[in-house]
Amino acid sequence: MRAARFDERFTLLDRAEAPTAPELGVGSIIERLIALTRSVIPPAETPHGIGVAAPGPLDSERGLILNPPNLPFNQTPIRDLLADALGVPVAVGNDADLAALGEHRLGAGRGTRHMVYLTVSTGIGGGLILNGELYTGAGQAGEAGFVIVAPGDPISGPGREGYIEPIASGTGLARRAREALEGGRDSLIRERVGGNLEAITGKIVGEAARAGDPLAREIVESAGEYLGYLITSLAHLIHPECVVIGGSVAGLGDLLFAPVRRTLAARIVDPVYAGMRVLPAALGEDGGLVGAAIYAAEGGIS
Amino acid sequence: MRAARFDERFTLLDRAEAPTAPELGVGSIIERLIALTRSVIPPAETPHGIGVAAPGPLDSERGLILNPPNLPFNQTPIRDLLADALGVPVAVGNDADLAALGEHRLGAGRGTRHMVYLTVSTGIGGGLILNGELYTGAGQAGEAGFVIVAPGDPISGPGREGYIEPIASGTGLARRAREALEGGRDSLIRERVGGNLEAITGKIVGEAARAGDPLAREIVESAGEYLGYLITSLAHLIHPECVVIGGSVAGLGDLLFAPVRRTLAARIVDPVYAGMRVLPAALGEDGGLVGAAIYAAEGGIS
Repeated sequence: MRAARFDERFTLLDRAEAPTAPELGVGSIIERLIALTRSVIPPAETPHGIGVAAPGPLDSERGLILNPPNLPFNQTPIRDLLADALGVPVAVGNDADLAALGEHRLGAGRGTRHMVYLTVSTGIGGGLILNGELYTGAGQAGEAGFVIVAPGDPISGPGREGYIEPIASGTGLARRAREALEGGRDSLIRERVGGNLEAITGKIVGEAARAGDPLAREIVESAGEYLGYLITSLAHLIHPECVVIGGSVAGLGDLLFAPVRRTLAARIVDPVYAGMRVLPAALGEDGGLVGAAIYAAEGGIS
Repeated sequence: MRAARFDERFTLLDRAEAPTAPELGVGSIIERLIALTRSVIPPAETPHGIGVAAPGPLDSERGLILNPPNLPFNQTPIRDLLADALGVPVAVGNDADLAALGEHRLGAGRGTRHMVYLTVSTGIGGGLILNGELYTGAGQAGEAGFVIVAPGDPISGPGREGYIEPIASGTGLARRAREALEGGRDSLIRERVGGNLEAITGKIVGEAARAGDPLAREIVESAGEYLGYLITSLAHLIHPECVVIGGSVAGLGDLLFAPVRRTLAARIVDPVYAGMRVLPAALGEDGGLVGAAIYAAEGGIS
């Protein structure tokens, strides 16, 4: 959990973080989140508003966190709990949506009318800025991780459901490396985890790719290729001017972006989409925090 | 080419059609389109406006047809050509976009805020109504036929590019039937074309499916399954309240819609998308004409 205070130009003034510790239950998470938020508010000041970048799925209009995987929330009225405790208006948005808003207003997507943000990290998520505004559709638009790019293909994991997330997320990179090593492939990665394949993470695969390990390179290249299919599809469907990619896996830079761009060049129907740019996120890890502040300042619900 | 006259409540008053005959060239097409349009305007009347549902890609703001496949247009200023000849303001939109607008205002999508229209016919196209308005993004949004659902898979044709269009369009159904018959499969379809496999069309495959032919059923079922992947992806990305499917292949009804719905039920991440409906188009073949009239009445450019 992170909390930050911004001035009216969205300059970061103070920042704090604490472990979420979901095993302590919802009550404890909320209590500690309130304390963390208080810790960045000077005693004599009252903020104009608070934006919360929360894991989805959400009911933004009612300020509820519904039932996110791996967290004990269930229809939790986080907006009202925080507003009551802190005496300040609170707006709740999806974390990837608010990172999209941050990148659009102050990051890589500045000046565009239509922008798609993708976050490629432990999982894959996204947010849409259409006609200059955050677009959430009937509530949960932007869930790019569940776009189907390879149905029935073992590349997407044991269920073969074909979603992009298990192919190109950090978790996916780790699984794919593990499967290859179980299949007898040789790689730096095996040494890095002392032979304990369960210890492989996306970060370790990324580091091995940076170090030139052929297996890791191959997996990252393939992740880029499939992200290229995802972006081809969303270009044809949504036709944004710009696709911004953030998250830790995007931190691999050209190792990931080169196969993305190569795939787009091969698959996008020219020439109308030729102007669409694909850019790395500019706000780094704090994109969601900045986006939450902007969301609060702009009045919350899209 | 079709032309129709509507009253201010979009009731159809008159309708005419003529072959496009692209081999006669752009000049002839435009000349005959003007004559066709004149034929539905009574001598003493001047329409309030004219909407044109044109094949994409387009530059709607400048009223140009850019370079559609199979038609000789090239940056053709159709808006100004028609407006000059007929002395009436003209608005030009993509045919699938305007069919989407028609279905939203007066068809299956009435009353929704966010709707996706898909047309599954010779090809596959689409249009998006977001926040109640036609959304075209940087110009060519809604090109659902070029969503990638099976990259590298021979099911998508010789190029294996994986687009949904060659898998589930009428042209795709015909190709897949032809390939199966060349591979020795038995089917009603073979008799229907007197052994001439080049004569197979999507319509013939559809008729054989209706008659219970196992091969045709299998191909239509598979088309529905892959359309289900497309709709799963666009649900997660765009989260519309409603997906409306039109076009001749959608005319197969439950033969197509049952596998679409089965695939959605299996692949959509519950429970937030549970309310999303998938409906057949209500306006039939004239959806694009109605949509063009509405587009003109609403002022054109989105």
